[in-house]
Amino acid sequence: MSDTTSNQMWGGRFAAGPDAIMEAINASIGFDKRLAAQDIAGSRAHAAMLAATGIVKASDAEAMREGLLTVLSEIEAGEFEFSAALEDIHMNVEARLKTLIGDAAGRLHTGRSRNDQVATDFRLWVRDQLDAGEEQLLALLRALLVQAEAGADWVMPGFTHLQTAQPVTWGHHMMAYVEMFGRDLSRLRDARARMNESPLGAAALAGTGFPIDREMTAEALGFDRPMANSLDAVSDRDFALEFLSVASISAMHLSRFAEELVIWSSAQFRFVTLSDRFSTGSSIMPQKKNPDAAELIRAKIGRIFGANVALMTVMKGLPLAYSKDMQEDKEQVFDAADNWLLSLAAMTGMVGDMSANRASLEAAASSGFSTATDLADWLVREAGLPFRDAHHVTGTLVALAEKKGCDLPDLSLSDMQGVHESITEGVFDVLGVHNSVASRTSYGGTAPAQVRAQIARWKERLG
Amino acid sequence: MSDTTSNQMWGGRFAAGPDAIMEAINASIGFDKRLAAQDIAGSRAHAAMLAATGIVKASDAEAMREGLLTVLSEIEAGEFEFSAALEDIHMNVEARLKTLIGDAAGRLHTGRSRNDQVATDFRLWVRDQLDAGEEQLLALLRALLVQAEAGADWVMPGFTHLQTAQPVTWGHHMMAYVEMFGRDLSRLRDARARMNESPLGAAALAGTGFPIDREMTAEALGFDRPMANSLDAVSDRDFALEFLSVASISAMHLSRFAEELVIWSSAQFRFVTLSDRFSTGSSIMPQKKNPDAAELIRAKIGRIFGANVALMTVMKGLPLAYSKDMQEDKEQVFDAADNWLLSLAAMTGMVGDMSANRASLEAAASSGFSTATDLADWLVREAGLPFRDAHHVTGTLVALAEKKGCDLPDLSLSDMQGVHESITEGVFDVLGVHNSVASRTSYGGTAPAQVRAQIARWKERLG
Amino acid sequence: MSDTTSNQMWGGRFAAGPDAIMEAINASIGFDKRLAAQDIAGSRAHAAMLAATGIVKASDAEAMREGLLTVLSEIEAGEFEFSAALEDIHMNVEARLKTLIGDAAGRLHTGRSRNDQVATDFRLWVRDQLDAGEEQLLALLRALLVQAEAGADWVMPGFTHLQTAQPVTWGHHMMAYVEMFGRDLSRLRDARARMNESPLGAAALAGTGFPIDREMTAEALGFDRPMANSLDAVSDRDFALEFLSVASISAMHLSRFAEELVIWSSAQFRFVTLSDRFSTGSSIMPQKKNPDAAELIRAKIGRIFGANVALMTVMKGLPLAYSKDMQEDKEQVFDAADNWLLSLAAMTGMVGDMSANRASLEAAASSGFSTATDLADWLVREAGLPFRDAHHVTGTLVALAEKKGCDLPDLSLSDMQGVHESITEGVFDVLGVHNSVASRTSYGGTAPAQVRAQIARWKERLG
Amino acid sequence: MSDTTSNQMWGGRFAAGPDAIMEAINASIGFDKRLAAQDIAGSRAHAAMLAATGIVKASDAEAMREGLLTVLSEIEAGEFEFSAALEDIHMNVEARLKTLIGDAAGRLHTGRSRNDQVATDFRLWVRDQLDAGEEQLLALLRALLVQAEAGADWVMPGFTHLQTAQPVTWGHHMMAYVEMFGRDLSRLRDARARMNESPLGAAALAGTGFPIDREMTAEALGFDRPMANSLDAVSDRDFALEFLSVASISAMHLSRFAEELVIWSSAQFRFVTLSDRFSTGSSIMPQKKNPDAAELIRAKIGRIFGANVALMTVMKGLPLAYSKDMQEDKEQVFDAADNWLLSLAAMTGMVGDMSANRASLEAAASSGFSTATDLADWLVREAGLPFRDAHHVTGTLVALAEKKGCDLPDLSLSDMQGVHESITEGVFDVLGVHNSVASRTSYGGTAPAQVRAQIARWKERLG
Repeated sequence: MSDTTSNQMWGGRFAAGPDAIMEAINASIGFDKRLAAQDIAGSRAHAAMLAATGIVKASDAEAMREGLLTVLSEIEAGEFEFSAALEDIHMNVEARLKTLIGDAAGRLHTGRSRNDQVATDFRLWVRDQLDAGEEQLLALLRALLVQAEAGADWVMPGFTHLQTAQPVTWGHHMMAYVEMFGRDLSRLRDARARMNESPLGAAALAGTGFPIDREMTAEALGFDRPMANSLDAVSDRDFALEFLSVASISAMHLSRFAEELVIWSSAQFRFVTLSDRFSTGSSIMPQKKNPDAAELIRAKIGRIFGANVALMTVMKGLPLAYSKDMQEDKEQVFDAADNWLLSLAAMTGMVGDMSANRASLEAAASSGFSTATDLADWLVREAGLPFRDAHHVTGTLVALAEKKGCDLPDLSLSDMQGVHESITEGVFDVLGVHNSVASRTSYGGTAPAQVRAQIARWKERLG
Repeated sequence: MSDTTSNQMWGGRFAAGPDAIMEAINASIGFDKRLAAQDIAGSRAHAAMLAATGIVKASDAEAMREGLLTVLSEIEAGEFEFSAALEDIHMNVEARLKTLIGDAAGRLHTGRSRNDQVATDFRLWVRDQLDAGEEQLLALLRALLVQAEAGADWVMPGFTHLQTAQPVTWGHHMMAYVEMFGRDLSRLRDARARMNESPLGAAALAGTGFPIDREMTAEALGFDRPMANSLDAVSDRDFALEFLSVASISAMHLSRFAEELVIWSSAQFRFVTLSDRFSTGSSIMPQKKNPDAAELIRAKIGRIFGANVALMTVMKGLPLAYSKDMQEDKEQVFDAADNWLLSLAAMTGMVGDMSANRASLEAAASSGFSTATDLADWLVREAGLPFRDAHHVTGTLVALAEKKGCDLPDLSLSDMQGVHESITEGVFDVLGVHNSVASRTSYGGTAPAQVRAQIARWKERLG
Repeated sequence: MSDTTSNQMWGGRFAAGPDAIMEAINASIGFDKRLAAQDIAGSRAHAAMLAATGIVKASDAEAMREGLLTVLSEIEAGEFEFSAALEDIHMNVEARLKTLIGDAAGRLHTGRSRNDQVATDFRLWVRDQLDAGEEQLLALLRALLVQAEAGADWVMPGFTHLQTAQPVTWGHHMMAYVEMFGRDLSRLRDARARMNESPLGAAALAGTGFPIDREMTAEALGFDRPMANSLDAVSDRDFALEFLSVASISAMHLSRFAEELVIWSSAQFRFVTLSDRFSTGSSIMPQKKNPDAAELIRAKIGRIFGANVALMTVMKGLPLAYSKDMQEDKEQVFDAADNWLLSLAAMTGMVGDMSANRASLEAAASSGFSTATDLADWLVREAGLPFRDAHHVTGTLVALAEKKGCDLPDLSLSDMQGVHESITEGVFDVLGVHNSVASRTSYGGTAPAQVRAQIARWKERLG
Repeated sequence: MSDTTSNQMWGGRFAAGPDAIMEAINASIGFDKRLAAQDIAGSRAHAAMLAATGIVKASDAEAMREGLLTVLSEIEAGEFEFSAALEDIHMNVEARLKTLIGDAAGRLHTGRSRNDQVATDFRLWVRDQLDAGEEQLLALLRALLVQAEAGADWVMPGFTHLQTAQPVTWGHHMMAYVEMFGRDLSRLRDARARMNESPLGAAALAGTGFPIDREMTAEALGFDRPMANSLDAVSDRDFALEFLSVASISAMHLSRFAEELVIWSSAQFRFVTLSDRFSTGSSIMPQKKNPDAAELIRAKIGRIFGANVALMTVMKGLPLAYSKDMQEDKEQVFDAADNWLLSLAAMTGMVGDMSANRASLEAAASSGFSTATDLADWLVREAGLPFRDAHHVTGTLVALAEKKGCDLPDLSLSDMQGVHESITEGVFDVLGVHNSVASRTSYGGTAPAQVRAQIARWKERLG
């Protein structure tokens, strides 16, 4: 999280005197300049309120609001000179405003402090990331639905312990991730609703005697209401921790999918082909495609959850209200948000581009006696055997097939009847992998009809 | 998380042969026996459904359901012999059921597997903890409201950087924690609503061909609906991670409050007196009270968030659907839940018992020029000075008071007018700490009227 | 980390009164009884020193030392009644000693306190785990050397990005883990040397006025020296954190190897066959072997590193000297140690039992143009091409082979000369996988001769 | 860890196409340019070796070595144009070298690959941080020794549970931190010795057939030896994890000291006065000094240990040899190293500048019956009471003093004899805090003589 500036400054670090060391550890402008837009939006809302409540003159407020727009445009144009001596984004903006509009700038800070100002800025920034995350999650969900629909009835091995357990469908597997990322979306929306309260007007920590209107600034900034306790307003970082928690669980889902893509891309599996755009090649092995994007996505949980650990550790045992420790919140959240959104975008791109190798999937699904469970279930259902007996008979048949070097559907009826006389021709209806998946029609099961019903439900839900 | 049994077995560990090592690492009955009640509830719901759908005979289902009740009563009475050779709670219960009711027991496992069974059991267990956590949080909130109401107008120092910043009220400080634990409650309820879906009937991973009714079992177990994808149902542990995240943030709040109680109990602060019940003494220093409970609560965030790290690490990069790695989920959640609930109960007890030392709080609030901000605000509001000028005048007056060895209210009017002529007698209205807090009437501010309004709002909310 | 006792006690938790809650959170005997042997060893050393320095009478010390042996034998025989009311192992032992030997027991605590006593006990316990870890690591290293020696010249694919990159030897791959676990051993030994200092005699925190001999007790307990600062002696938990760090890095190595074993056991790879003892089967799929032990080992890093996070979080920001927070240290270390040692033992067992499928390994190594780098290197070395040109020629030849559906060694010389005229018959010497690995004779390379040299070096090192 | 460039690039992120997304996630030049000096040192050593072994012509090697120096000077002068299209530092340097010296540049990569190159660069970088850390730790130790020597006999309260337990000396307290940071130094040196091996020449993963001399490059780069297994050489990141672990434990020590400084700076404690340089003030409260540097140092453990969590999570379960996941290693270590070194420097500055308030310390030490333990010990030693009886008598005397509103030394002899007749005039020798600390002469105890002996030992050790 070290930006270039601080590194350079810190380059000849062992010669640095106390003042340079203090500036290096204390100044936040190196990173909190990312809050510029939010800081200016907050100040503009505050200025309008100060005028509406008669705390400052309307003309002063108008000057502030116009001046702030000028500052914003300077920053957006890359023409703003940030100063480390001014420590943080708030002081940098205010100092520039004073240059632009004169003494009126000094009245902007009435009825607020840097404590509630930074809490407001950062909350607005995090809210923006939640909104961006929603957009990215929706895009990923849509990409998964396209894959699921295309392969709603393609069979592939369903694994437990990375061993073939039962055949499932490609669509069903894709829809498992739709459920996961769908929960991420639900979690994100709850977090957004909970954090959408305004700290502005809490002032340093105790509120203020100026007749401010916190409802008005809250509304102007899109908050649902002002926070109800000023001490809490300046010392709370739950919104950042909850964001990190939401992003971490989502990054965990991404890591699972990425792991599957890495394994599926191996020469031994060949289940999927990733596009050139999300792979890197080798100049001497033109056929080789390294799943670099998948590997990087798999790794991102590290820094995202690492940021969660970092901020939780910072907040542990901090007395109320504001302590300088809390300045360590921003870089962690900035980095986690950047990397989570980037991972979602990269995964969406990969999913959109990738091709499932239908033949390899079906061949793998058809080996390894993957329909043994179907056979056992048939014995229970059609031949009336108790569950544990059906397992025993199935085991004997699998052993027989293994001995013969064939799979279950390749055994003859007489072979089967030699093991248990009640087996009839009907058993072959469940031994093929297509029959197997088609039969699993329980709600949420792998049968193509079930998968298509879930796809339809999600399409409607996503609009 | 090591239970005594495994430790003893593992005592002469270096002589242990491969089979003993495998049993030690593989068996889960040492800890998953805590799921007994949930396992039996799940099986009873499953049995009823198997009869209702005609998959098993009604008489068989009835025998299963009765037999399961017998097993439960044996376990509750401490008469059940758990067997490590039977590996887990599911097999232990099923084996005992077979002894009790004979072959019919073998039909219970129709249309399910251990994968959806353990997912169901664990989800029910976690849901119970969420319900217990709700109860505990409500008790803590009520205890805080009692403290807040008693001291709605007691003044104390409001700290930033552990330095006196402005006077606040005891009630206001207590209400800050009401907001924090109130958010924990909100987060908990969202988590509960999201996780309240039934995995039962997902079978091994692909669903089943038996005509099971997943809606029926879901309803019988109090779930809102069945999970919509069977692969996801057996491989999802989001509900456990979200529980750990909710508990971790809550434990962080507890750690902050506990830190304050430790500091406030020191001889140097003397802000609160903890009860004997939540302190420990010294045989040679009878007046000494060590805030042991507060320290232990402060520390609990370690193991609770450590469990979050542990499970997140386990889940990182796991391919679908079930892998044995996931067996590591339970001990972490058991331990975190026990310690979170215990911490909440201990904090509730401490808050209920503790006495604020009103005189010490007020004396501390009245020192350290704590009303300097009030003076500056008065200069802006009443004398029309710009904010930054008002700060300068205030700084000069504080320096004068410091030189005279008094606090701000002790300066004479002429002293003050010597610094700035526009100061009038009215300034003394804001220099006392009681006036100071009374003046901060902005929404959520520290004025007793505001604090009482928030107490009233919360009382209504908690019912 | 919850033991059965505390769970039962805490069963009807919401009805528990304050006293029960305080006992539940405060008492440590539920877990610190695992320190019994260390506690008694420490007390016996202390008693001998008290007599040698004339602080207590020789006859009293002898009674203490004998009585302590009796207590130990009672505990080892499982006949000791631990009492939660007596809080911890120290008080439980002392109370029993008093019953056994009367008032003399009261003199044992002269010149020490529970603070240095628990620090000594715990340090001795951790030292025992380091010694056990050394033994387990040596066993694992020896098992790996056996595998490496057997397959020093078996070829297998060397992967990057789970894509075949170049052929390597099985022995070389096994020896990579020898290096990793060898570093764990080195790290462990450094940790042991650093932590082997005695806290005993630091007393509560300030040392003591009794003329104790800390060198004597240190020597009796196998410590290299007494710790040099009594405040540090009672407040230091570095030894526990360093143990957790050593175990965590080692668990990370185990997780990597376990991941490989899970992938290698899949039907798609078939690189290894795990023994029945370290797999679990399926009653209906007798050929199926789930790599349960490997999966559990892969997961163990979660709880081991989770414990590291937990204790680091506990220690963050604790003022000197002793705080009750530190009581949270033991359960974390107990659990991490148990699981690390168990994982090492299980991995050693698996490595000892597993069979590499030599034919599958060689077939996989021989596909995927794995010797393309050898070809490029040949072009540089023998035909004098610059590196980047050699890459280009190789790429063209791989593309040609791919088009022809063959691998590199199957191209004819004229095919090759069609791409670059300077290629001669000699090129075929490097295109076979056996030639490829034999050629990589740089120090530490995969050539069987290099691998055997490293095996010999390690055998000598391990003695 | 996001640098400005990537943020800007990623600004309009939702419109970014797949290619932009892949570049954003894949390119590392944004951060690995910090390895430039190490990369060039490694390449220069490699070039010299290629010439010495006859693999390239001496004149070519000379051109490479000169050209690399030119590249380095361009980078140091800030004149180098880094290109994201060239992905990483290696390719950026090599491309520039080609421009400077032509085709000979293409021979530099003979017998190595980017896998061993980055492992070498990063190892060299981490080694530099260990060396910088050693320098910083030594400076901090020296600053602590100055404080300890100045106040070797100043009394202050020794706390347990933040309650006064016994008087100790300021020097003794400072020396506790000398022990802690001294262990950090020891840990750092072990880590450096273990990691000082050269990966260079491991090539992609299997070693090489070129007759390279790995001993020679190892020596040229200051490594003790080449790594012994090429697979391990490219897949090992233990050195980074061990660095993070060393830094994390050290950061934990810093957090404890910082917490004490924050508490000691409060108006309630007033134990120390921090210098203006390491505090921040308030424009309206000129007397106020916020201990900002201490708070920031306290917080730094968050990101440093968070980086440890992040990298451990990344490495969990990675198969050999190189996976792209490992590219996530550098930013974590960069950030942790920067912040650890900065924290050490800031703490050294604060310690050098701070003044202990000797009078406040002594006053606090003299209250709270802090010599009750001395009294009890006197009763054991001089009056022959058993330990537990001595405690009882002491408790009665403390209660008596509390009732009289005085401290222990203020009780009269007859008061004392009223409680236990064996008390004599001599008891007053141990009741004053100076006598108390002087009496604790056990090795490592708080007696000024002991403290001075430890200071002398450390001065000798540090040279």
